Amino acid sequence: MGLLEKIYEPKDLRRLDFTELETLAQEIRQKMIDVVSKNGGHLASNLGVVELTLAIHRTFDSPHDKIVWDVGHQTYVHKLLTGRLDWFSTIRQYNGLSGFPKRAESVHDCFETGHSSTSISAAVGFAKARDVLRENHHVLAVIGDGAMTGGMAFEALNHAGQSETNMIVVLNDNEMSISPNVGAMSSYLNRLRTDPRYDKRKEDIEYLLKRIPGIGTQVAKMVAKAKDSLKYLLVPGLIFEELGFTYLGPIDGHDQALVEQVLDQAKHKKGPVLVHVVTRKGKGYRPAEENPDIFHGVGPFDTETGKRTKISAPPTYTTVFGETLCALAKEDPKIVAISAAMPSGTGLNVFASQFPERFFDVGIAEQHAVTFAAGLAFGALKPVVAIYSTFYQRAFDQVLHDVCLQQANVVLAIDRAGVVGDDGPTHHGVFDISFFRIMPNLVIMAPKDENELRHMLYTALQYCGPVALRYPRSVGQGVKLDETLMNIPIGKAEVLRQGKDVTLIGIGPIVNLCLLAAQELRHRGVDAAVINLRYVNPLDRELLIHYARLTKHFITIEDQVLKGGMGSAILELLEEEGIEGVAFERLGYDGFVDQGPIPQLHKVHGLSVKGIMQAAERLQLIRRVAQS
Amino acid sequence: MGLLEKIYEPKDLRRLDFTELETLAQEIRQKMIDVVSKNGGHLASNLGVVELTLAIHRTFDSPHDKIVWDVGHQTYVHKLLTGRLDWFSTIRQYNGLSGFPKRAESVHDCFETGHSSTSISAAVGFAKARDVLRENHHVLAVIGDGAMTGGMAFEALNHAGQSETNMIVVLNDNEMSISPNVGAMSSYLNRLRTDPRYDKRKEDIEYLLKRIPGIGTQVAKMVAKAKDSLKYLLVPGLIFEELGFTYLGPIDGHDQALVEQVLDQAKHKKGPVLVHVVTRKGKGYRPAEENPDIFHGVGPFDTETGKRTKISAPPTYTTVFGETLCALAKEDPKIVAISAAMPSGTGLNVFASQFPERFFDVGIAEQHAVTFAAGLAFGALKPVVAIYSTFYQRAFDQVLHDVCLQQANVVLAIDRAGVVGDDGPTHHGVFDISFFRIMPNLVIMAPKDENELRHMLYTALQYCGPVALRYPRSVGQGVKLDETLMNIPIGKAEVLRQGKDVTLIGIGPIVNLCLLAAQELRHRGVDAAVINLRYVNPLDRELLIHYARLTKHFITIEDQVLKGGMGSAILELLEEEGIEGVAFERLGYDGFVDQGPIPQLHKVHGLSVKGIMQAAERLQLIRRVAQS
Repeated sequence: MGLLEKIYEPKDLRRLDFTELETLAQEIRQKMIDVVSKNGGHLASNLGVVELTLAIHRTFDSPHDKIVWDVGHQTYVHKLLTGRLDWFSTIRQYNGLSGFPKRAESVHDCFETGHSSTSISAAVGFAKARDVLRENHHVLAVIGDGAMTGGMAFEALNHAGQSETNMIVVLNDNEMSISPNVGAMSSYLNRLRTDPRYDKRKEDIEYLLKRIPGIGTQVAKMVAKAKDSLKYLLVPGLIFEELGFTYLGPIDGHDQALVEQVLDQAKHKKGPVLVHVVTRKGKGYRPAEENPDIFHGVGPFDTETGKRTKISAPPTYTTVFGETLCALAKEDPKIVAISAAMPSGTGLNVFASQFPERFFDVGIAEQHAVTFAAGLAFGALKPVVAIYSTFYQRAFDQVLHDVCLQQANVVLAIDRAGVVGDDGPTHHGVFDISFFRIMPNLVIMAPKDENELRHMLYTALQYCGPVALRYPRSVGQGVKLDETLMNIPIGKAEVLRQGKDVTLIGIGPIVNLCLLAAQELRHRGVDAAVINLRYVNPLDRELLIHYARLTKHFITIEDQVLKGGMGSAILELLEEEGIEGVAFERLGYDGFVDQGPIPQLHKVHGLSVKGIMQAAERLQLIRRVAQS
Repeated sequence: MGLLEKIYEPKDLRRLDFTELETLAQEIRQKMIDVVSKNGGHLASNLGVVELTLAIHRTFDSPHDKIVWDVGHQTYVHKLLTGRLDWFSTIRQYNGLSGFPKRAESVHDCFETGHSSTSISAAVGFAKARDVLRENHHVLAVIGDGAMTGGMAFEALNHAGQSETNMIVVLNDNEMSISPNVGAMSSYLNRLRTDPRYDKRKEDIEYLLKRIPGIGTQVAKMVAKAKDSLKYLLVPGLIFEELGFTYLGPIDGHDQALVEQVLDQAKHKKGPVLVHVVTRKGKGYRPAEENPDIFHGVGPFDTETGKRTKISAPPTYTTVFGETLCALAKEDPKIVAISAAMPSGTGLNVFASQFPERFFDVGIAEQHAVTFAAGLAFGALKPVVAIYSTFYQRAFDQVLHDVCLQQANVVLAIDRAGVVGDDGPTHHGVFDISFFRIMPNLVIMAPKDENELRHMLYTALQYCGPVALRYPRSVGQGVKLDETLMNIPIGKAEVLRQGKDVTLIGIGPIVNLCLLAAQELRHRGVDAAVINLRYVNPLDRELLIHYARLTKHFITIEDQVLKGGMGSAILELLEEEGIEGVAFERLGYDGFVDQGPIPQLHKVHGLSVKGIMQAAERLQLIRRVAQS
């Protein structure tokens, strides 16, 4: 029995000495490597925060003290230390532990996270609530340097800095978000770090001081003598100090004693404090240290070699998107691409290496990404923004107000649309059809397979005006990819199968289930038409009206919530056209969706051949048609 | 004929000498005061940027150079100088000039704005497009210090600062957004300004230098001698310098020659430059200088006295909301309120003065406001966030991901829901039902009058879970306000009138039109039921099903877009319940809505008794019922 098995709650940690803590850290790392190599998950970031998490739980008293974990995927260590060791092997599985903080799981998870840059806001909330209620406990936000590029983190710093409330922001600086960080703040943190580049900054200071008439040269000489003091006193954290925080650091986040010592200092300071902790992503597991990008979120792998189990499969939608964009960009020098800290996740890494001057990674900053794209468009370029569906939620207003209102020529590539699997409700992209559909002037398309994706991307880039292109997180259908790309007429659906008894309407690859269901229905004597809708905006009104009148039965299926979705769009169409008497069944999600394998989630929620058959039964099609 | 009449385009300004410019500035101010005193509009901010706008157009060459105006309500001077003098008297009127930049109006309006903090993003876009296309022109963003608190401005600074692209950010610092600014950045800018408070900062520097072992005291002495140099060299703009910008300023924004000189400097610098210009809101018109808050956005007023024409009218929804919240907060010490830079606009100024410790103005930072509220809720308080409908678009993800997913006990007060009048499409609150409705766990309510608003606010604060409460920008119905507040059962609609031929369903005060229409229909022999829906989430399923079966005709009316709105929610309900054969008409907006007086906008879009009657005709109710 190891040390880890004896940790039932955080206070058990306080009995351990530093040698035992080192052993415990090793056990924790081993446990995480074992489980993540089977389940997949966020490995590199968790390996990086072992000592930091131990230090936090030894210095502070959770759940009395409140700890908010930004992004939340780095809470595996926290979970192991707060009574969840026994369930840890179920992490990210259907009905298992969440890969993110979950209030329902533990009193130690005081705030749920998943999207980036929320923790400081939540922590200011906890701190102010404590002040109003005249309670007395500590509040911490633990936030990565990547998340610091998100605008709302700045909004929260701006509020906290002026508030004078007692709270601690632990800046976990590993020089990465998922890919290496970009942006001026990142450069600034770089300069703060104790590394050789730092000297450059010191020279800047000397230069600056030299420019002060009268005292410049003398001061510069003294500065030269006192470089180290200056380094820690004058420069570090001045931005944070100017914003009202006491800045402590930078410190080595793997030096257990040092981290505890500085956290203890922070605990006794008045007002907001920022502790700058430098950690190494993947720490303690060589494959992850060497490739933190790959081991950020990883599928099952071999623990010895760090190699992922290779599965031969068709290319993913993401890959096909990236490659097609490169091919088109070769022909058209006006095409540029934008990522919000996800160049490889969105398949834009190839584009970035082929067209470095035409690629922009703006950091975790979806709002800026979209409005920046609108600016590029009015500057006569053709920008393609690739962001995950769930993160477009951050840019709702920018798409509506900056792109759609002035009809900017921007292509919004919506990656990871539909359920995304193990990451669960914070990451599923199941709202985008509903919220993009209400935006005037926005064309919305979704391909049935990776080949159609290619034609749609081509079409989107030909089109003048804003376009959203939606595709899922998964491998393609394995279809042949056409060499020559063609325009798919805007607003034209595709009839995959003629039929007269019922119309099955789907959008995205899920429409392929309709074809299977149609065969099944055929055996039951029902002649089903199948429509690949292709466009949610504008709808193919003519075709839908024709099939409504012909078949009088509609079943719609979408990898999306039901409210306001594609099915609703068709209901609205029938109402607008005054077509009554169409029996209707909509298949989709009814609210937030849990974590689990994508095919399982589809099945559980009726997005399956069986689901379609049941809908047909509810429409009394099967019995009725069988009788006729 | 004055000087202004001779300015047809910006280059005409270059002929003028500084004496003539002074005269021109006076003419511009007089023109704006004259027109805004009649039309209403944004006065104080425009009075503050007269010299700055003249300097920009004399130093730069629009439309070749690109000028992006943040928020855009301070572009009146720009409009007067770019060929729009003749139409200026129509500003903010139906079919008149927009109160914001509009690409369709002029080639000098290169980017449309309305919401805050977008300009730097757009400017980086223009700059990068220029770089990619190897063009050669200047790009400016003109942004207020208030807008700088918005997170996306920081995201853009972070990108621009690292990009090394040539662009200029003009920080128009008037110490105000609409109300005086809050937050640490604002304090920082305060310190940068040349005012007595500044000395404090200098002392800090001395203190800091003193702490450097060995050199401290000597340096401090020298610093004392060279305070002024230090002031301009060491401290100002260090945050911006650290973020990669060359910082110039602060300078007096009403010193025409100085502003031009510094802009010219900026024009010749490489890389991103930030010019810090200090202006005075309301400059040159005493009533506005003294009350910049009131003259930010103002209705018609008397130019002599600055007094607004008093109209006796019922209190606005906003006022009733603010007063009711105060009354409830007196009883319940856990109620706290949050504003995003709009304490008076949202009626929370009374709350702020009565409960200063329980009121939080977080600046123009809607994202933070909402997640902060979630933190407060889990800290055991009852937060009420009051934000305009159009600005909730900025916090879409925070409402969904931070409030709804973890069912935080937050009340989201949606002020200015529906069309808002003269501000036009950037400010109408016509999407919120559609985008809030898709969020699981969120109760959405809207009162038919100001008395119901009181009961609903009470109900929302009793309820455990997230609630959105929607009300318009207008005076109330003038109904009596109940003293005792009561719970309105969640999800229960109200039958305002029984009827058997058709059901008129409305939400919000617009439902009152249904009562008038029902009378009219009565004269035509149609017996209409009227339902005040009250709740979009959850729907009163039972009642709606009953009336669907009874009347077989539904007409819905909402001050909102049609796509995904309340009417769609009812269409979905009928589909889910398998109720066919209900003839249906939905009234609402079909896309973006222009500017104009609210009653006129309602009429133009069929939200009127006539509109309802026409819908009844389309349903062939009037003829059919008349025949029976």
